[in-house]
Amino acid sequence: MTTLSLTTDFGNLNGFVGTMKGVIWGIAPDVKIADISHEIPAQDIRTGSIALWRASAYFPAGSVHVAVIDPGVGTKRRAIAAKLGDQYYVLPDNGLITPMLEDAEASGVEVRIVHLDKPEYWLSRVFTTFHGRDIFAPVGAHLAAGVPLEMLGTVIDDSVRLPLPKPVKTEEGIEGSIVVIDVFGNCSTNVRVSELSDLENATLTIGGQVIRGVLPSYGHAKIGDLVAVTDSEGFIEVAVVNGSAAKTHGIKLDDKVGIRFNA
Amino acid sequence: MTTLSLTTDFGNLNGFVGTMKGVIWGIAPDVKIADISHEIPAQDIRTGSIALWRASAYFPAGSVHVAVIDPGVGTKRRAIAAKLGDQYYVLPDNGLITPMLEDAEASGVEVRIVHLDKPEYWLSRVFTTFHGRDIFAPVGAHLAAGVPLEMLGTVIDDSVRLPLPKPVKTEEGIEGSIVVIDVFGNCSTNVRVSELSDLENATLTIGGQVIRGVLPSYGHAKIGDLVAVTDSEGFIEVAVVNGSAAKTHGIKLDDKVGIRFNA
Amino acid sequence: MTTLSLTTDFGNLNGFVGTMKGVIWGIAPDVKIADISHEIPAQDIRTGSIALWRASAYFPAGSVHVAVIDPGVGTKRRAIAAKLGDQYYVLPDNGLITPMLEDAEASGVEVRIVHLDKPEYWLSRVFTTFHGRDIFAPVGAHLAAGVPLEMLGTVIDDSVRLPLPKPVKTEEGIEGSIVVIDVFGNCSTNVRVSELSDLENATLTIGGQVIRGVLPSYGHAKIGDLVAVTDSEGFIEVAVVNGSAAKTHGIKLDDKVGIRFNA
Repeated sequence: MTTLSLTTDFGNLNGFVGTMKGVIWGIAPDVKIADISHEIPAQDIRTGSIALWRASAYFPAGSVHVAVIDPGVGTKRRAIAAKLGDQYYVLPDNGLITPMLEDAEASGVEVRIVHLDKPEYWLSRVFTTFHGRDIFAPVGAHLAAGVPLEMLGTVIDDSVRLPLPKPVKTEEGIEGSIVVIDVFGNCSTNVRVSELSDLENATLTIGGQVIRGVLPSYGHAKIGDLVAVTDSEGFIEVAVVNGSAAKTHGIKLDDKVGIRFNA
Repeated sequence: MTTLSLTTDFGNLNGFVGTMKGVIWGIAPDVKIADISHEIPAQDIRTGSIALWRASAYFPAGSVHVAVIDPGVGTKRRAIAAKLGDQYYVLPDNGLITPMLEDAEASGVEVRIVHLDKPEYWLSRVFTTFHGRDIFAPVGAHLAAGVPLEMLGTVIDDSVRLPLPKPVKTEEGIEGSIVVIDVFGNCSTNVRVSELSDLENATLTIGGQVIRGVLPSYGHAKIGDLVAVTDSEGFIEVAVVNGSAAKTHGIKLDDKVGIRFNA
Repeated sequence: MTTLSLTTDFGNLNGFVGTMKGVIWGIAPDVKIADISHEIPAQDIRTGSIALWRASAYFPAGSVHVAVIDPGVGTKRRAIAAKLGDQYYVLPDNGLITPMLEDAEASGVEVRIVHLDKPEYWLSRVFTTFHGRDIFAPVGAHLAAGVPLEMLGTVIDDSVRLPLPKPVKTEEGIEGSIVVIDVFGNCSTNVRVSELSDLENATLTIGGQVIRGVLPSYGHAKIGDLVAVTDSEGFIEVAVVNGSAAKTHGIKLDDKVGIRFNA
């Protein structure tokens, strides 16, 4: 009864995700499947990697995460599978693994990555345009069914990494950037709240706007206010109470957020 | 093999729902999970409550329904769980429970509600911005795994209720209002068909439009006609055959529908 | 542990699909459910049939596919169930079955179709506006739970068929048409790649555009190029590398594609 998650940019229109589930259950009939997201913007590896990173941390030990945001499908880009701590990942080698890999390295847990070069664990007929169905889904299913990682491919240590933006120290505090915008228009930064010793007296600057203090939650300000709160992973988030910070204030991915530690 | 349903306004972009499934399966590995809707308009408690009410009535006895439309997350609003008849509900105490509770009271089945005040059934780290993951999902999973309702919190009898619109009797018949608009643009009222003794001779008025008679189904009129039919819960629905009544006639939630019993 | 798939035009807003899952698990608690698509354009039987055809081919033997694109719900159109090869289908008799049926006939596998006329396998209360919940879901669940097809209805051999467009031979090669446009804007034709002996030297004409050669995959041309590739079912597909052929070149369903075998 292993759990397997799916993250793609396939949308839910054409049945691609359903097809992958058919393949998975043909190989591993007992696996439970959770969709993480199929609405990752087309070919947006970074957004996919962050959605997967945030969600997969909450899955039971031994879960298998199959992710397919794959602009290079059918080219020489490698397909890989990894064990990072107690979670497995199956995905194209295009940087999608980066935040999970960096976290695993930072926390010193097990890191094993293989290049998927054993076609006996793929569908017998592989089309160059749908490796999600023909390679990633079957490999994920075999992993979930108990096939050891090393059977699926050759160990590598040079997987591709995304250059994810990092916060930088400034004279007055720290400068981060917006790395996630959620469906409500809440904008999360890459700055951990734990970097700030005094939440009440911090000052944030984003675009022309200044925000004083980081609140415990949205409900501690008035509807329509632009506020800073702790997001659900412990990062500083910029939000409009019961509204959309992204829409109202035109905030976009990669926008800089200046944080002054003391007002 | 209990069934658990999820209803939220989280959308499917960011992986919030997948995260909740990871949490649930970490606690209750055998539970089956059905999505009811994750496209409830943001913070629209009433629309969420009606979607949940219509769907949950069709679930097997003992199912657990976790619903998170939660504009007050992180404030003092309570989290609650309830047994209403043979179904369980886990949700914020903001009125989301109203139609199920009113139905349970009207039909005289069991009603038990607890305030979720036992953190030992939550995730160990609770963030103020994502109780769906940190409180509602784990509590739902514990319920599904067999933890008795009373273990999860303190019994209360003052849960918050929405003021749901009710039909009113008029001289000529009854006046209802539009309470659900579905994806096809079909507009359901809060008037049960059983209130009308003579479906054929009833007359409906909505906006400037007059509709004569309630038909057995869409296919009994011409494409493009504005008709009244019995919706899938036994309420009177206004629809355009193979079209959208909402779009074509500008019908909105809360629009009044006058019904004259005899033409 | 049979697998059951769902394909509808219900969208994911109102909870109709979740309701069907509640019904299914009430009858067949062990069945695994995969969503194929719920975003089929409203009443678009052909698009639904092709999504189902492409996905269901990848499901394990014995899977049950419930599909509800059903503009005629509540009229005299029949509800049917079929065994085609090793897959089961439950759907309205409006042509939705066509591509699976044509494939089964062409490959000479088992074809058995019944008219669903045994209400004892439906919900006890059938509303004229939601047969997905009241007829198709319970029949699919009973099939998945092991009820023989012939118990569910009377054998028929005159199910409704869609007139699906077929490629035609021309002097220079073959003329096909666009039958699927996916979420990326890739446009698949009804011409199998196996019809072309020389992929490199074929020439395609669509709208005013000319495409030389069929490439192994998207990554073999430059970003923004209009290319022809083999799609994930072995058909010729017109695509823009990392872009949308449908948007950039205004390609629509049923557009003609001329293919000259030798340049």
